Amino acid sequence: MTEFINYPPSLQKLIRELSRLPSIGQKSASRLAYHLVQNEPELIDDLRDALANAKSSIKQCDGCFFLSETTTCSICTSQNRNREIICVVEKPIDVISIERSGQYNGLYHVLHGLWAPLRGMGPESMKLKELLDRVGEGVVREVVLGLSATVEGEATSLYVARQLKESGVISTRLAQGLPKGGELEFADEITLGAAFSGRKAVNF
Amino acid sequence: MTEFINYPPSLQKLIRELSRLPSIGQKSASRLAYHLVQNEPELIDDLRDALANAKSSIKQCDGCFFLSETTTCSICTSQNRNREIICVVEKPIDVISIERSGQYNGLYHVLHGLWAPLRGMGPESMKLKELLDRVGEGVVREVVLGLSATVEGEATSLYVARQLKESGVISTRLAQGLPKGGELEFADEITLGAAFSGRKAVNF
Repeated sequence: MTEFINYPPSLQKLIRELSRLPSIGQKSASRLAYHLVQNEPELIDDLRDALANAKSSIKQCDGCFFLSETTTCSICTSQNRNREIICVVEKPIDVISIERSGQYNGLYHVLHGLWAPLRGMGPESMKLKELLDRVGEGVVREVVLGLSATVEGEATSLYVARQLKESGVISTRLAQGLPKGGELEFADEITLGAAFSGRKAVNF
Repeated sequence: MTEFINYPPSLQKLIRELSRLPSIGQKSASRLAYHLVQNEPELIDDLRDALANAKSSIKQCDGCFFLSETTTCSICTSQNRNREIICVVEKPIDVISIERSGQYNGLYHVLHGLWAPLRGMGPESMKLKELLDRVGEGVVREVVLGLSATVEGEATSLYVARQLKESGVISTRLAQGLPKGGELEFADEITLGAAFSGRKAVNF
């Protein structure tokens, strides 16, 4: 074989750029690139516009650091929110998940990181000082630590709670136990342990 | 709950456009959009350039209908290729797979479709007339039907072979049998049947 034929350079380049996206491998990237060029050229324009628009419009809210097109996001400016409670989350997507649950009506604070010393991420890698400043204003009474039930999430909860101790607010964290719809048979022992130690009186 | 908070409109729009891509669902699209806006704004520009470039540069080769930036692709214009043999494939990506095998040095013909009457796709939905025209020029001696070993692939092979019958070229198709490295124990019965009926004398 004297030569090795591949896609034309501009398609190879598109494949390379697409495969820089998280969870998009070489194979998926080829499929996507091929689909765009072959079947949906008009989606190429729509995507380019949407990318440019998102890049130029999206900032972080100066209050809670959720994503926003305005200086302060619609949650922080809302009159219908309970301003005495702040839910601390790791990422903007967590705000969306909690909003979908329909069970929370306070404000948020997006840390944009976790305390993960093993990965070289200390307290300065998250928006912690900004949280302490907000709490320091004196309106907030409770901080809900809405972090993942992972080692890093729990270490961060503990760390943040300690930092908040002096301010006098109550730090709470989300309940851990069986996921709704989860069968006991399939729960791992750590989850089951958490479900036991967190058991509650039945109200009837 | 008096309001439901979601991402800012420009981010929602980017998520919508990304989820139009094949195999990208709502969840993956949010993750990708968030990643782009949050962590890799420079990838947004690279992606936009690559998309525009691919869209404007990529055409189909006027000989074999493989993707090309030039009127005729580098395989069709190559002096090192055996011009007496054409391998018929369904999609451009199949050309890349066969090239990677390093076992083929002839030309290609990309059908851009299969004969799939159940999905309303007849012979006119693929580049069949163009194949017959190429074969009609008299240089080609063999057409290898390099189509998938699926119902539609095999029906198309049969259909194309019938159309080629009058032209006097030999139609061959790829061998079917155990995949390399595949254990007999795990081969399904249809594959095993094909492996039996296609068995070959051992050369030693």
